[in-house]
Amino acid sequence: MKTLKFGILLALALPGFVHAEQVAQAASPDGRIVVQLDLNGEGRLAYRVLRDGKPVISDSRLGFILRNDRQLLRNLKIDGQSSRSFDETWEQPWGERRFVRNRYNELRADFAEKDRDQRRFSMVFRVFDDGVGFRYDVPKQPNLAEAQIVQELTEFAVARPSTAWWIPAYQWNREEYLYNRTALSQVGVAQTPITLRADDGLHVTVHEAALVDYAGMNLAKGKGQLLHASLTPGSGAAAVVRSTPFHTPWRTIQIGDRAADLVESSLILNLNEPNALGDTSWFKPHKYVGVWWSLHLDKETWATGPKHGATTANTKRYIDFAAANGFRGVLVEGWNVGWDGDWFANGWDFDFRKATNDYDLRGLAAYAKAKGVHLIGHHETGCAVSHYERQMDDAFALFDTLGIDAVKTGYVCDAGQIERQDVANGSVLREWHEGQWMSNHHLRVVRDAAKHRVAINAHEPIKDTGLRRTYPNWVSREGARGQEFNAWGDPPNTPEHEVTLVYTRMLAGPMDYTPGVVSLTGKNGQEIGSTLARQLALYVALYSPIQMAADLPEHYAQHSEAFRFIKDVAVDWDESHLIAGEVGEYAAIARKQRGGADWFIGAINDRHVRSVPLKLDFLDAGTRYRAEIYRDGEGADWKGAARFRFVREERTVVRGDVLDAWLAGGGGIAVRLVPLTR
Amino acid sequence: MKTLKFGILLALALPGFVHAEQVAQAASPDGRIVVQLDLNGEGRLAYRVLRDGKPVISDSRLGFILRNDRQLLRNLKIDGQSSRSFDETWEQPWGERRFVRNRYNELRADFAEKDRDQRRFSMVFRVFDDGVGFRYDVPKQPNLAEAQIVQELTEFAVARPSTAWWIPAYQWNREEYLYNRTALSQVGVAQTPITLRADDGLHVTVHEAALVDYAGMNLAKGKGQLLHASLTPGSGAAAVVRSTPFHTPWRTIQIGDRAADLVESSLILNLNEPNALGDTSWFKPHKYVGVWWSLHLDKETWATGPKHGATTANTKRYIDFAAANGFRGVLVEGWNVGWDGDWFANGWDFDFRKATNDYDLRGLAAYAKAKGVHLIGHHETGCAVSHYERQMDDAFALFDTLGIDAVKTGYVCDAGQIERQDVANGSVLREWHEGQWMSNHHLRVVRDAAKHRVAINAHEPIKDTGLRRTYPNWVSREGARGQEFNAWGDPPNTPEHEVTLVYTRMLAGPMDYTPGVVSLTGKNGQEIGSTLARQLALYVALYSPIQMAADLPEHYAQHSEAFRFIKDVAVDWDESHLIAGEVGEYAAIARKQRGGADWFIGAINDRHVRSVPLKLDFLDAGTRYRAEIYRDGEGADWKGAARFRFVREERTVVRGDVLDAWLAGGGGIAVRLVPLTR
Repeated sequence: MKTLKFGILLALALPGFVHAEQVAQAASPDGRIVVQLDLNGEGRLAYRVLRDGKPVISDSRLGFILRNDRQLLRNLKIDGQSSRSFDETWEQPWGERRFVRNRYNELRADFAEKDRDQRRFSMVFRVFDDGVGFRYDVPKQPNLAEAQIVQELTEFAVARPSTAWWIPAYQWNREEYLYNRTALSQVGVAQTPITLRADDGLHVTVHEAALVDYAGMNLAKGKGQLLHASLTPGSGAAAVVRSTPFHTPWRTIQIGDRAADLVESSLILNLNEPNALGDTSWFKPHKYVGVWWSLHLDKETWATGPKHGATTANTKRYIDFAAANGFRGVLVEGWNVGWDGDWFANGWDFDFRKATNDYDLRGLAAYAKAKGVHLIGHHETGCAVSHYERQMDDAFALFDTLGIDAVKTGYVCDAGQIERQDVANGSVLREWHEGQWMSNHHLRVVRDAAKHRVAINAHEPIKDTGLRRTYPNWVSREGARGQEFNAWGDPPNTPEHEVTLVYTRMLAGPMDYTPGVVSLTGKNGQEIGSTLARQLALYVALYSPIQMAADLPEHYAQHSEAFRFIKDVAVDWDESHLIAGEVGEYAAIARKQRGGADWFIGAINDRHVRSVPLKLDFLDAGTRYRAEIYRDGEGADWKGAARFRFVREERTVVRGDVLDAWLAGGGGIAVRLVPLTR
Repeated sequence: MKTLKFGILLALALPGFVHAEQVAQAASPDGRIVVQLDLNGEGRLAYRVLRDGKPVISDSRLGFILRNDRQLLRNLKIDGQSSRSFDETWEQPWGERRFVRNRYNELRADFAEKDRDQRRFSMVFRVFDDGVGFRYDVPKQPNLAEAQIVQELTEFAVARPSTAWWIPAYQWNREEYLYNRTALSQVGVAQTPITLRADDGLHVTVHEAALVDYAGMNLAKGKGQLLHASLTPGSGAAAVVRSTPFHTPWRTIQIGDRAADLVESSLILNLNEPNALGDTSWFKPHKYVGVWWSLHLDKETWATGPKHGATTANTKRYIDFAAANGFRGVLVEGWNVGWDGDWFANGWDFDFRKATNDYDLRGLAAYAKAKGVHLIGHHETGCAVSHYERQMDDAFALFDTLGIDAVKTGYVCDAGQIERQDVANGSVLREWHEGQWMSNHHLRVVRDAAKHRVAINAHEPIKDTGLRRTYPNWVSREGARGQEFNAWGDPPNTPEHEVTLVYTRMLAGPMDYTPGVVSLTGKNGQEIGSTLARQLALYVALYSPIQMAADLPEHYAQHSEAFRFIKDVAVDWDESHLIAGEVGEYAAIARKQRGGADWFIGAINDRHVRSVPLKLDFLDAGTRYRAEIYRDGEGADWKGAARFRFVREERTVVRGDVLDAWLAGGGGIAVRLVPLTR
C-alpha cells in the first residue's frame, strides 16, 4: 500500500493529482541558467535546473526524514517568496586568484505544511553564471524545535547521459581511493565532488559548500542517472541533530561548457561566509621540506630508536637544507611522545606538548629562527580526538612561542573509528571522518589554532567545502590519495590519478599532495609512475598555499637541475587558468605569481603520449619573457629508466606565442616565465 | 595516510605483504561450487566462490565497523576450522513443494585477532549444489560483550559481467518500486533479492536468510561489479546492537545455469530453523474475497460514512458470494475504530478490539461460520507499532473466539517513519521497516498470533527471508508493488513487473499480490496492462498460500468463464517447476496440487507477443488429462478492448505433449490439468 490516504483525498480535490505546478523561478545574471521549483498534487517539492532552456537537472525532490518527528516532504504549500541580486568582488588573503567576483541572483521560497503541525522551511537558491547553490533554511518554530535528520531527501536527477569521475563513499579507507571513470549510471555511492561530463560536452560538478555543524553529503545512485543525498553517519542515531533555526550546507551544482569552467569556478568559495578571523596575514604561503618521505620509505621511523627520524641532529640537517635553498618550513613527524606504542587508531597516549628525549624542540626552533626558517608542527591524533582537544590549546600556545605557525594534523584510523569521549559519562563514541561531530571538531581546532596564530593542514580530514574563506588559517589538507601511495601503495598512483584530481578533489580546495619526489622511487625500489618533469609540474597543477619538496635532500643533490624549479616556483597566485585539458586525460594550468611578475605553467598527462599546444596569450603584451622550460626528454616514459629523461632549456617568448609541449605517458612539463627588462 | 603502522610492521615481516594466503575451503556435495577463504598480509579476511573452477564471486572482504569498539576486520589469524556434511529431506506444512531436500557441506572457520583484544568470530559457510549461505558467528567473549554494528563490511565482488534486476533501497516508498533492469555496474543501492544474469548465462541471486534480531541487508555498488552490504538503519546509533554470542543472518548466493534453478531453489528455506511452533495445521491455505478493491477504486471508503465499505450488509454480501463460490475467507478492511482520523503514518487512534457501529463483528462471524466461511481480520497499524503491540494480544484473542484465523497487517508510512514508544521515557522513536527493531516486532506479532491460532499476512512488511519455515503461521506478505498500483499507481504496473517478480521478489517467499481483477480497469477508468487470461495465470505464477479473488462480485458475474479458473485453482502444492521462462521476459510455472491430482500451469508475458511451447513432461505417465485452457484470444493485447479477448477451451493431453501457448503482449495463459479416469 502506497500513500493511500493522501492519494485518495487529493484525488477528490485534484483530478490528475500527480501533475505539478511551478511555484517559483530564478535565473542567473546572464540568464542562461534557470532554476524552477514545483509542487505536485501531493504537495511534494521539486526543483530543476535548465541551461539555455535545456535541462541539466530534471525534476528532483527535496525533503527530510526525521527521527524525532514526522517526515518533512509532502503536503506543502508555498507561503511566500522573495528574490535579490548580489554582486561584489572580494580579495583572498591567499589563493589561486587574488580577486573573486561573487555575483548571483537569489531566490528564497518559503514552504509550510498545509495541515497538522504546519511546519515551515525555506529553500534558498543562488544562481550564478557558473552554477547553482541551494540550501534548506529551517526557522525556529514551536512544532519543530529540534530536527534529528536521518536522511536528507535531496535529489540530483542528472538530465543528460554523462560520464562520471568518482570515488566510493563509506569505505574503510575514507577518501583515499583511485578515481573511477564510468558512465554516471554506473556510479554506486560516491563522495563529492563528483564530476560529470555529458555526452553533449556539458561539464557538471556536484558538491557542497560551507559544511558547518552538519554531516558530509555523499551521493547514492538510484534509477538511471538519479543521485540521492546520503548523509555520513555519526555516533548518534541521526546523522544530523540541529535545533531550529538552522540551515543546511549549500548543495552545489557547478556547470560549464569546458573543463576549465569547473577548474576556474569560485562558486564554492563564494557560498562561504567572509573571513571570520580578521587579520591572518601572519600566515605566509610557503614551501617546506622535512622528515616525512624517509618515514614512508621505512628508512627512518616515527617511533624512537635507532632509526628515529625526528632527532635533533637530523632536523638540523633539514633546517640547514631549507635555509640554503629558500624553503620557509621544516616539517618533523614523530617529534612528540606517543609514537612508540600502538598508536594506530589509538592516540590516547600521544602528548602534544612533549618532545621525545632525542628531540630538542626549543633548541631547534631557535636554530631555525636564526636561519629564517620555521619548524612546522605535527599533531597526529590517532583518532583520539577528545584527547587531542584537551591538549590542543596548550600545544598551539607552545608552538606560538616557538615561531611554529603551521601544523599538520592527522586522523589515521579507518572510517567510523574516530574516538571521542562522551562528556556525560566518559564512554567512547565512534565518529566518521565526515560526520557532523567532526565538522565541528575541525572548526574547534581551526579556531583555536587561529587564536595562537597557527595555520592548519589537516590530513585524513573532513572534505573541503571552501571554509578557507571564513577561516583563512585552514590552509590545506589531504583528503585524497597523495604522494605517499607512491611509497607503499598497492597499486601506487596511476598517471591518471593526479590528472583526475585536478578536475575532482581540487575543485573542493587546496591539497597537500607533497610533490617533488625526483628520485621517482618508492619503498623497496618500487617505481613511481611519473617522469621527472611531471614531479615539477605538480607544483602548479595541484594547488596548495603550502607545498612540500617531499624528497630527501640527497636526492635533490642528484637532480639539481630539476630542483631549481622547485626552488623557484611560487605558491601564491594572482590568477589561475586551465589553459588546456580534458577531465582525467591531461591538464595544463597557468598561474601568475602573487607579489611578483612571473608566470608558471604546469601540465600533467595520463599514460598516453600527447602533444599540447600551450598558448601564451595570458602574458603581458609588449613584454618579453624568458621561458625556463623543464620538460620530458626524448623517449621519456612513466616506466623504467625512461622516466628520468629530462630536459631543461630556455627560450624567449612573447604573448601569443605557442609552446608545443610534448608530454610523455605519465609525463609533464613545468615552465617558469620571467619578464625580461628591456 | 593509509594503514601506515600495519603496512610498515608487516612489510618487515612479510615482503609482498599484500598477497593472500588461502586458509580454508569447502565444496558443494556435487563438487561444482567451491568456497575459499583467504587471509592477506594485513590479516584481512576474504572469501571467493567458484563454480566449475571459474569465479562467481571474486575475492570479497568480510568484517565489521563497530560503534562501541574498534573495527573488526584486520590483523586476523585462523584459529581452527571444522567441517561437516548434512543431508535431510523435510516436509513443509504448506508451500510450493511438499518435500524439501536440505543437503550441504558446512565449513566453520574460526578467526582471532593476533594482538590487542584477541577478539574472535567464526565464519560459517554452507555450500549447497544450488548456492552458498554464510554467516558470522560471534562467540561470547570478555573483550566483545556487545557489538554495536554500524556497518557490516561484507562484500560480493560479482566476477562475471552481468545484467541486474533490482529496486532501489532507502527510498520513501520502501519496497514498492518497479524493477530496474540494468547492467550490474549500473546498480546504485539495491534491495535484496537482487537477481543477476551473467553474460555467459549464469544466474545468481544475492539475498539473505533468517533475518532475526538484525537489520535487513541492502547492497551498495562500489567500483565495477562490487556490491557492499549496507545495513538498514534503526532509531539507534548503530544499525544493529547485539550481545555476544550472536550470529548474523545468512548471506545467500543462489547460483544456477537457468532461471529455473533460482525459481526452484529452496536454499533460503533450508537456511532457516525448523518449525518452532509445533502443530500449525489449523492454518489452511485458501482463497479469499472481500472489501478491498472497491476501496482502491474509491467506490467505498475505509472511513465510516455514506460510502463505508465495512458495513454489516456489505460484508454479508461478500460472505454469501464466498460461500456460493467456494472461497474460505472474507477480508474486510475498515472494520475497526480509527479510520476516520488522520491515520496515515499515525495509527495511535486505531482500536483493534472495537468494530465501527455499522459493523456487527460477532454477528458476521457467526453468519460466516454458518456458511463455512471465515472472516479475515485486518490490522492496519498506521505505523504506531507500540500502540499495536499493546493491543494485539487482546485483538488476536478476540479473533480466535470468532473463528478468524488469518489477519492482514499493515504498516502504511514512509520509510524510517515507524513509530515506537521508548519504554524508558515514553518518547517516540522512529524505525525503518527493515531495521533490527522491526525484525523483532514482526516476530513478536507472529508468535503472539500463533498463540491464538492466527496466521499473519503482513503488508508493508520487512522482507521475506524464509522465516515461514520456523513460523509457519507467517503465511504471506506484500513487500513489492502489488495489484493495488493498477488501481491508482502512476504509472500502473507494467507487463514486465509481474514477470520480474517471479525471478526477484518471489525468490524471497510468498506474496499476497491479490490477482484476479477481471474487469482490467482501475480507478477513473484507468486500464490495467494485462489481458484477462493473464489475471488467471497470476494465481499460479505468483505463489501464495492465500490468494485473493480481488475483483468485485459483480465483475466476476460479468466474466463467469474466467471466474471458473479462479474457483478451481489450487493454493497448496506438492511440486512446482518453472517449465519455461527468462528473467523479466516471461515465466511459465507448473504446479501439482497438494492433496489432489490436478496440475496447474500459469504463464505470464512481458509486452512482446511470444509463442512458448509448454512441455507436459511432468504429468503422470499413462494418465490422460483434460486440459482446461484459459488463453489470450486472437488479437489480444494489454491495451484497449483487446485485453478482454479471451478463449476457454478443453483438450485431452498426455505426458510428453506440448502445448503451444501463444501469449499476447502483457498476456498469459492458465491451464488446469485434470486426470481422467479411464
